[in-house]
Amino acid sequence: METGAPGIAAVDAPTPDRIMQLGLGFWASKVLLSATELGLFTELSSGPLDEQELGDRLGLHPRSRRDFLDALVALGMLERQDGRYSNAPETDLFLDRAKPSYIGGILEMANARLWQFWGTLTEGLRTGLPQNEIKSGGDFFAELYDEPARLRQFLRAMTGLSMGAAHAIAERLPWDRYQAVIDIGCAEGNTPVQIALAHDHVSGGGFDLPVVQPVFEEYVASFGLGERLRFHPGDFFEDPVPEADVLVMGHILHDWDLEQKQALIEKAHAALPDGGALIVYDSVIDDERRNNVFGLLMSLNMLIETEGGFDYTGADCCAWMRAAGFADAKVEHLVGPISMVVGTK
Amino acid sequence: METGAPGIAAVDAPTPDRIMQLGLGFWASKVLLSATELGLFTELSSGPLDEQELGDRLGLHPRSRRDFLDALVALGMLERQDGRYSNAPETDLFLDRAKPSYIGGILEMANARLWQFWGTLTEGLRTGLPQNEIKSGGDFFAELYDEPARLRQFLRAMTGLSMGAAHAIAERLPWDRYQAVIDIGCAEGNTPVQIALAHDHVSGGGFDLPVVQPVFEEYVASFGLGERLRFHPGDFFEDPVPEADVLVMGHILHDWDLEQKQALIEKAHAALPDGGALIVYDSVIDDERRNNVFGLLMSLNMLIETEGGFDYTGADCCAWMRAAGFADAKVEHLVGPISMVVGTK
Repeated sequence: METGAPGIAAVDAPTPDRIMQLGLGFWASKVLLSATELGLFTELSSGPLDEQELGDRLGLHPRSRRDFLDALVALGMLERQDGRYSNAPETDLFLDRAKPSYIGGILEMANARLWQFWGTLTEGLRTGLPQNEIKSGGDFFAELYDEPARLRQFLRAMTGLSMGAAHAIAERLPWDRYQAVIDIGCAEGNTPVQIALAHDHVSGGGFDLPVVQPVFEEYVASFGLGERLRFHPGDFFEDPVPEADVLVMGHILHDWDLEQKQALIEKAHAALPDGGALIVYDSVIDDERRNNVFGLLMSLNMLIETEGGFDYTGADCCAWMRAAGFADAKVEHLVGPISMVVGTK
Repeated sequence: METGAPGIAAVDAPTPDRIMQLGLGFWASKVLLSATELGLFTELSSGPLDEQELGDRLGLHPRSRRDFLDALVALGMLERQDGRYSNAPETDLFLDRAKPSYIGGILEMANARLWQFWGTLTEGLRTGLPQNEIKSGGDFFAELYDEPARLRQFLRAMTGLSMGAAHAIAERLPWDRYQAVIDIGCAEGNTPVQIALAHDHVSGGGFDLPVVQPVFEEYVASFGLGERLRFHPGDFFEDPVPEADVLVMGHILHDWDLEQKQALIEKAHAALPDGGALIVYDSVIDDERRNNVFGLLMSLNMLIETEGGFDYTGADCCAWMRAAGFADAKVEHLVGPISMVVGTK
């Protein structure tokens, strides 16, 4: 064996550590998914508990509960002092079901669905076909839209996930030039809410399927913005999109195939006035396709979840915008793996 | 929402990034597992290939093959130059099936078995019961020992994984004090081989189930050590272990429950002369149970895979050794997540 030859120092030889950490990285991931499923962070939101109290409340067998909790400590998801466990600041804010900032809906969905579907990634890579409910004739999103409570939680999770991007868009765009913004595929409407909170002169609203309307209106009203931000029901492939001088598409474009992406960009271009802007944000892949791991993996998640969706580089999106008639298109990083592409008509 | 209140700066607020990276971390893990399953690194060992050549050889559909390959580039597992992909140094050494240093057997096993079994971690945490083939009356290890080709690959993977620890043990222990070493549960015998290569005066061998004998003897002979290192067939619960002044147990103790661990330590103590040493190595958990993430997760893997196994801290193991009669016991870090506990009689 190369590294076993006598007299050869092994110090600079490659080690299997990174391979093993990545290949077995699903262990750490599943520990957080199970903790979320069990409601661990919700249970701890009212104060610290010791191993036995917490185990009893969650129905955990004594055998491995301490390993489970200490693994979460080592992963930075829990804190532990004098044998009592408490939430880390992030898990307290984002994984307590009782808080409006809860994003665990995404992790619950990943745990209940994606774990299994990603298990057949190899088949997806060989066939190019989705690996979710579509394989057995189901449709997760149709079912989601039929269940108001689950839909509400899903839309709330989207708000938590897009909060950083929404703040950045509200801060960075030259809003003094614009009067109205419409978020296409708006979910609760978090992006227009953040923009309206930061800029008193901006009005507008959101466009999404009719089933989303009550959730949007309740969320917007909770900020006292019901007068300035209106809901426009519709299907963005079937119906025209509302006119506004800024249109936003966040985590929308990557769901669709190339032709559908181009159609959505053309539809936005048609609805904008001269000087208006289309803001697309997603886990935009770097042009070299070397750095944004999350964007590349999200694109594989589109293989698992959709018939033709994929993520794309900033250069890809700028080219589609220019082909649709936008005079200018540029990429700007927002937060974490998220960037926006701004097309100006 | 806390982070959405007007006038509150969001800059220092917690973000969901770390939660999402960990919770969806199984995506990256599965990409490497599928690449190993597909034989990607073996295919690339003979030289760089472009996307289409590589996709054709592996039978990948064009839809997502570029995302798959570029995700592996972004994860550091492949390199890419002028559109041609090649192995990173680590993946070339450890994930090419044609090299004796191949450790992909572990990842293939994780992909084919553990992905699914870890999928029911929550059930394991609630019941304290293993989640592998045992649930349906099977026994993975019994089946493994019945299939010579798979067993050989598994034992070879163990060699690759323990290479760093074996080198460190060969370097660090005061071998001038010792004449003979026996590795209990030796697999191919990599640890005694590394010790014998580094110290001409040391002889000994390995102890394992009889089925391992031809694999051990072939491996040892390939280093010209057949005269110095002998195989001792047996079952370490049923049979006495051979006498030697150093006994080694690597990745053995964590498979068993407390009583079995203590019995194995007592058996080793009985087989050692005064002044002899027992070396136990594993993903030993730090005494504070806060830092060695891999050790804590490995302990949860023992929940998934065994009836009563668990990983342990250095302090735990030192206490068991002292209770068994060892005069001294101390912990020393070896490499990555691996430490050894040395008990001196």
